[in-house]
Amino acid sequence: MGIGDDCALLAARPGEELAVTTDLSLEGRHFRLDWHPAEAVGHRTLARGLSDLAAMGARPLAAFLSLGLPPELTCAKRGQTPWMEGFYNGLLALAEAHATPLAGGDLAQAPLALADIVLVGAVASGKALRRSGARVGDQLYVTGRLGGAALGLQLLAESQGKARRQTHPELESALGPHLYPQPRLEQGQMLARKGLATAAMDLSDGLSLDLPRLCAESGVAAEVEAEQVPCFPGATLEQALHGGEDYELLFTASPTARLPRSIAGVPLTRIGQIVARRKGRPEVTLLHKGRRSPFLAGGWEHFSA
Amino acid sequence: MGIGDDCALLAARPGEELAVTTDLSLEGRHFRLDWHPAEAVGHRTLARGLSDLAAMGARPLAAFLSLGLPPELTCAKRGQTPWMEGFYNGLLALAEAHATPLAGGDLAQAPLALADIVLVGAVASGKALRRSGARVGDQLYVTGRLGGAALGLQLLAESQGKARRQTHPELESALGPHLYPQPRLEQGQMLARKGLATAAMDLSDGLSLDLPRLCAESGVAAEVEAEQVPCFPGATLEQALHGGEDYELLFTASPTARLPRSIAGVPLTRIGQIVARRKGRPEVTLLHKGRRSPFLAGGWEHFSA
Repeated sequence: MGIGDDCALLAARPGEELAVTTDLSLEGRHFRLDWHPAEAVGHRTLARGLSDLAAMGARPLAAFLSLGLPPELTCAKRGQTPWMEGFYNGLLALAEAHATPLAGGDLAQAPLALADIVLVGAVASGKALRRSGARVGDQLYVTGRLGGAALGLQLLAESQGKARRQTHPELESALGPHLYPQPRLEQGQMLARKGLATAAMDLSDGLSLDLPRLCAESGVAAEVEAEQVPCFPGATLEQALHGGEDYELLFTASPTARLPRSIAGVPLTRIGQIVARRKGRPEVTLLHKGRRSPFLAGGWEHFSA
Repeated sequence: MGIGDDCALLAARPGEELAVTTDLSLEGRHFRLDWHPAEAVGHRTLARGLSDLAAMGARPLAAFLSLGLPPELTCAKRGQTPWMEGFYNGLLALAEAHATPLAGGDLAQAPLALADIVLVGAVASGKALRRSGARVGDQLYVTGRLGGAALGLQLLAESQGKARRQTHPELESALGPHLYPQPRLEQGQMLARKGLATAAMDLSDGLSLDLPRLCAESGVAAEVEAEQVPCFPGATLEQALHGGEDYELLFTASPTARLPRSIAGVPLTRIGQIVARRKGRPEVTLLHKGRRSPFLAGGWEHFSA
């Protein structure tokens, strides 16, 4: 934390645009001190911002963190590591994995824990993935598997946070996508560099809430084939369709595009297609067991459910 | 608020570097709902960030705002404008005055009002004003007048905030620097463009706290001539030396530099000089009425005083 000057100085390469995103995480809304280990809160804070860069196909240049903390989280308690240290450890480990320097920030005493993360990235001019480029006939894809974060949150909620302190390997793997989501930077960057995607965004609020946003920006409608949606092991179809915070990429590609089956070990799965917007037809239709129904937002609301 | 894509895209000109700064403002610490009009909170939030750009000599490219608000501040009360609307009005008026688009942000419900502002600016490569460039023999300058923000805060505190609702013209002018500080963007940009300053920073925590920071970054010491310090009308010398949040620029210039007496109507005043750092001598010395004394930080702490 802390830089010598009033601002951090960054340089993009010639011919690059900058991508900037900011995400506010609040105790009680985006994380709970009794459910989420400090390391996971730090990881998730940065992952939200990195995932926004991934959605644009940008490479990270630097992160900036404004942190507000109650005094008891900054000092050691009963010989334990201070919460703040765990938070930084989690955040910096992910930052290192994606070569993202923490270039500045602000620290203040606050009555609750809050973290605002800013990511600055760079992308070749005109190559950024946008939400507005989907065209009728394009095929709809996701990276990875969906519903894992919702499953993890359910396990935490059912155990009132105790699940995080158990060391059962299966449980750890089930909590992984919720506690330590992986931003899909390599995938987004390759899609942008090779011009493979016509539109993209990251799945932060759940497929049923996010896909209509992509459709709205592109002026199109979409059909999702429920049977094709890749569910995280143990997650229900409901969790895969409506659960938030998976931070996988949702993207569209021309039907003639030659997509790899995976990028850097993460599978790409076709889950539907883009169709024309028509009066009286829902913006997004779900095809499930031979039936068509409007695909309505499940309303992922972090902890309010 | 809200952009169509996951990030905002910005382009610097060829040969420019980017300057990025982030500042967190919290209810109770940086502003009080009963003392500060919503417009002033919005203005001050953005002014903090713009002032950091001014200190580097950068021109603003875009601002990003993460806002956390309790529900009662987002809705109208007894036919009055919602607090949030006043906040935006104040912020956007200053943004417009400095041609700074609000390019994105985040809005969340929070138990207290908080605003994290991010400013992205551009400055010709290698031309940014730094804190580290002051050399022995350089002269020390400030823009504008000091102590006005501390005076305004004192008036607000003495009246328990009632001063803001009075319409006495003298009072309004005395509250101005505290409620509506003016970031010195034109001044910083001209100093950078013409290479007039060897080092610069903005005065956010008060001269007695900020000058040692500049000295530390430059590896030098300084002498301040108290009689030369330009006090805001009505402010005491104490307020001018120790009061925070004036957001004037503090800078150094070579003794041979030809500085204008003012830039865009804001006076530049010589207040001292840079001297060598010596063991046993204070980092900053105050010359006052023929006496020399160590210039110690008054400890500006927003509302804790």
